[in-house]
Amino acid sequence: MSKSNCNDCACRLASEVNQLKAVVKAQSKMLSKLVQHIKDGCKKDVEVKESSLKGLLNPCLKCLKPDTLYHLGLDTETTDFPKVFGDVRFVCMGGTKGRMEHFAYYVMQEIGLKINAATQLRDMAEAGNRFSMFKVGPVLCVSHGIGCPSISILLHELIKIMYHAKCQDPVFIRLGTCGGIGVDPGTVIISSEAVDGRLDSFHEIIVQGSGEKYDSQLDENLAFDIKLCHDPCKDRYEAIIGKTLCAHDFYEGQSRLDGAFCEYTPEQKKAYLEQLRSQDIKNIEMESLAFAALTGRAGIRSAVVCVAILNRLKGDQIQTPHEVLIKWEKRPQELVARYIRKVLYFSDEASDEAEEMEEDEEGGRNGSVKVAQGGAGDTQKAPEPEEEA
Amino acid sequence: MSKSNCNDCACRLASEVNQLKAVVKAQSKMLSKLVQHIKDGCKKDVEVKESSLKGLLNPCLKCLKPDTLYHLGLDTETTDFPKVFGDVRFVCMGGTKGRMEHFAYYVMQEIGLKINAATQLRDMAEAGNRFSMFKVGPVLCVSHGIGCPSISILLHELIKIMYHAKCQDPVFIRLGTCGGIGVDPGTVIISSEAVDGRLDSFHEIIVQGSGEKYDSQLDENLAFDIKLCHDPCKDRYEAIIGKTLCAHDFYEGQSRLDGAFCEYTPEQKKAYLEQLRSQDIKNIEMESLAFAALTGRAGIRSAVVCVAILNRLKGDQIQTPHEVLIKWEKRPQELVARYIRKVLYFSDEASDEAEEMEEDEEGGRNGSVKVAQGGAGDTQKAPEPEEEA
Repeated sequence: MSKSNCNDCACRLASEVNQLKAVVKAQSKMLSKLVQHIKDGCKKDVEVKESSLKGLLNPCLKCLKPDTLYHLGLDTETTDFPKVFGDVRFVCMGGTKGRMEHFAYYVMQEIGLKINAATQLRDMAEAGNRFSMFKVGPVLCVSHGIGCPSISILLHELIKIMYHAKCQDPVFIRLGTCGGIGVDPGTVIISSEAVDGRLDSFHEIIVQGSGEKYDSQLDENLAFDIKLCHDPCKDRYEAIIGKTLCAHDFYEGQSRLDGAFCEYTPEQKKAYLEQLRSQDIKNIEMESLAFAALTGRAGIRSAVVCVAILNRLKGDQIQTPHEVLIKWEKRPQELVARYIRKVLYFSDEASDEAEEMEEDEEGGRNGSVKVAQGGAGDTQKAPEPEEEA
Repeated sequence: MSKSNCNDCACRLASEVNQLKAVVKAQSKMLSKLVQHIKDGCKKDVEVKESSLKGLLNPCLKCLKPDTLYHLGLDTETTDFPKVFGDVRFVCMGGTKGRMEHFAYYVMQEIGLKINAATQLRDMAEAGNRFSMFKVGPVLCVSHGIGCPSISILLHELIKIMYHAKCQDPVFIRLGTCGGIGVDPGTVIISSEAVDGRLDSFHEIIVQGSGEKYDSQLDENLAFDIKLCHDPCKDRYEAIIGKTLCAHDFYEGQSRLDGAFCEYTPEQKKAYLEQLRSQDIKNIEMESLAFAALTGRAGIRSAVVCVAILNRLKGDQIQTPHEVLIKWEKRPQELVARYIRKVLYFSDEASDEAEEMEEDEEGGRNGSVKVAQGGAGDTQKAPEPEEEA
């Protein structure tokens, strides 16, 4: 074995040892907690009475009996929301069913959950015929379709799930693809804020004939935490934080030359994209405005993590081979899965929560407990150490 | 048999006789045409050089070699558009894959096409992972997702198909569901025009930072022709023509009380909906603005045919049983299938076209020929008479 190989191997083992130690520490705390719980006569956890959503939700919600979430095909009469969704801490969404189903299985593996070999994840929104939704322990993976109107319907209904299920401090993350502005294809862009076609940082909706504007900032700390999950030495791509332009159209709204209509010249297009670059816009996609505004109104911390599948300064048409696109699409998934794993097992928050539980005689709801106790399938084991993807 | 039953029976037979006569007439003309074609030594049809689209399309289109329709997973290099799509005369679209796949099989039966029992319709847009597209002879059936941004992407790419395939005078029809304003649930509303949340008849898109407005009128004659396919005696529902409000959001944009957020009172909601009624708005949906504006710009005749699944003056939540919703959703499909059948076999246009063909020694492209020659499957027969649905 060469010296370089030997060093690589030692480095890998050292990293594994660190991860295993963290898992052992988390499991030890969990064991103490469970032993204490048994000693205390297995008293039931104090029921959580309310969701932790800090935003000003619809006051009529509590009167809706049942509340029908039409596009998800769910209602509060036939589904016990606290039981089914009460442990959700991460809501991840992306454009298509295929991508989100893939992400669900991927994150399952990354957070050490297992599913009974005789079962598969069920599309929990199948009855609604619009979106797809898969649940893996504390992670909900949902498809949102294209554009702000589509994702806004989904967000209203997901926020209602958080409310009815009394979820505690959920984090919403959109994973997607985008056109980059002056960045190499394959770069991952984590949005600092979403701006509209006029570069204003708000999402406008027309309510009863009047325009109402809602701030479209995203959570700065969350963006930073996700960026920290990128390893500049190991990962063969860049991850950056920057401003995102949200268009309501893929062709003219993004100044493409290849739509059915195009009333500007190639020179005007170039000048416009250069202007975007000079204003620090890093990418263009189609959902971040509604996503930022609605999660912001609900007081939900949220992030948009997209991979650029082309550099718009160099072209419009996406002709990258399918297998390369597939590889690139996995990059936001990798970063977000690492982030979730870190929060669940390695963060100060996870340790603090475990400590609080040790001290708290009554116990309480805790995400990392729920993960260990199961979620995705009907027979689950405690998380096993996995090498970081 | 009672006298009433006997009358019903006679009435049904008379209707069948009329339909059969029309089919026999169309087939006779087709036979003469084919015989003449053989006598003339089976000369090839004169190739159609251009699509008939009258709008000002993107001048760059002819330079795109290949043109990649990213969201449909098609490109002009690997697909021979004139061969595959050249016979398309009707492009029907609706929200979900399931609904449009059902419509494809339904319209196949209604226009008398057959598919080889060993085959099934293929989703021609599967590779794009966004929309679904099925082709049944001259009818393209496509899903469009939710909202104007989603349908606008689809329309750009469908109009590019019409252009590359050199389609002649295609008609675009959106079939959907909607909230009715002061109409009974189950009523079919054919839109005269689409208006935005401020009740203006245009679709605004932001292009290079500036708002561009496009007219959102729909084809008056087409709406009338589709309404004529409704039989007030036989059909147990109403069909009306009226103005449609297109919202960019399902909850606040439509003044619902059951979204995650709601910053108006039930009284304000009621007053707003009453105001819509007083302005002759018959229904609210989420795609008609982009649909009307983009088809209008391309010079394509188009219609929006939606069934109201609730009367918004009486509530917000959709709690109608699934089987009733399914029945209602079929109503726009029935009307549109009757319209297509009528144009293909019973209209003056069909007769005129057949006559022109008899007189035209060189022959030419003709939709009703194409239907008879096939399209949906690989082994098709001439249309057989079917009772009107």
